[in-house]
Amino acid sequence: MITNGFRLPKTKIGEKTFQKIIRTGRKLFSINGFQATSINDIIAKSRVAAGTFYIYFDNKLALYLYLLNEYRHKIRQASSQAISGLKDRKSIEREGLKAFIMYVKQDPLAYKVIWESLFIDAKIFQEYYQSFAESYMYHLQKHVDIGEIRPDLDLETLSYVLMGIANFVGLQILFRDKVQENEIDFVVDAAMKILENGIYSEKKALSH
Amino acid sequence: MITNGFRLPKTKIGEKTFQKIIRTGRKLFSINGFQATSINDIIAKSRVAAGTFYIYFDNKLALYLYLLNEYRHKIRQASSQAISGLKDRKSIEREGLKAFIMYVKQDPLAYKVIWESLFIDAKIFQEYYQSFAESYMYHLQKHVDIGEIRPDLDLETLSYVLMGIANFVGLQILFRDKVQENEIDFVVDAAMKILENGIYSEKKALSH
Repeated sequence: MITNGFRLPKTKIGEKTFQKIIRTGRKLFSINGFQATSINDIIAKSRVAAGTFYIYFDNKLALYLYLLNEYRHKIRQASSQAISGLKDRKSIEREGLKAFIMYVKQDPLAYKVIWESLFIDAKIFQEYYQSFAESYMYHLQKHVDIGEIRPDLDLETLSYVLMGIANFVGLQILFRDKVQENEIDFVVDAAMKILENGIYSEKKALSH
Repeated sequence: MITNGFRLPKTKIGEKTFQKIIRTGRKLFSINGFQATSINDIIAKSRVAAGTFYIYFDNKLALYLYLLNEYRHKIRQASSQAISGLKDRKSIEREGLKAFIMYVKQDPLAYKVIWESLFIDAKIFQEYYQSFAESYMYHLQKHVDIGEIRPDLDLETLSYVLMGIANFVGLQILFRDKVQENEIDFVVDAAMKILENGIYSEKKALSH
């Protein structure tokens, strides 16, 4: 993980300035894109002194990586909290998916900041999803071991399948103008049905 | 679909110039991003006369939309060709997924050009995936009607699930340095297994 190039604030006032820069960076990167945003833009819109940016960040990339890492942690945290105490994999998948959707719903910039990495440096994008996939595989393996998940699945593929479902079902929800929580539950349950028994009609499957 | 703002060439020389502009645009948009690319950059790198750009495109957005639309058609075409003649949904899903992966493998800029829309105008991004989802739903419904796909699935969710799987299993393959076709087959079959019977162990499912 690339996490160098930033220094956390040590005072309350510093923390306030730091957060201002973070917020402005997130906003400008997601509106205008990383390439089209300059450090001067960030300084001007944050209303901080010109040198202040460099107290905390080496450069624009360091700020971006800080933001990306923040999303990485917040998304994992949201899902950890949602599945805390749950034991069976079905509930874990369901609540993990719902937590992801609720997260991106309240902060839709998440997609932009994360996918922006594809344009900044494809290696950052790749590392982001590969590390998610590795963590996913580690947890899935434990549920294979106790006989909850089929032993004949390729867990790397399963991890990407589950990440793909979360990201695209998340988009399905974000595309709607106003969304009530029961609509999210409906879509989450619909996705869970697919993971539970597949998509094909049993009658047809038996007749093959 | 937004397809205005461009004019197709009428001569062979025009076609050559047009293709040069397209190629340069695709390259610059995916390397530097849409915002950070100017029409002058495109003109300079295409080595065409300054006014030539405007013969074919009203503006930078018109060129981008042309490129996005080209991907839309090429990706659909790749999958149509791959599934041509196939009747059962399992083969259609398998060959459609493989065709998508083969397509993005030979042209990995596809992700960048398509996801760039999120930064240019989220409405374009939304329209891109919503129109894919609608077309998917239309075709899935036919296979529900003949009893091949379970009648109790929400087809909108299923469409996003399938698009998510294709996009993320596509990334899984693109993240590898060198990929042989048999590795792609392995991953495609692994994904198909999930769609066929779900991810949970049957023993466990029965004991519930």
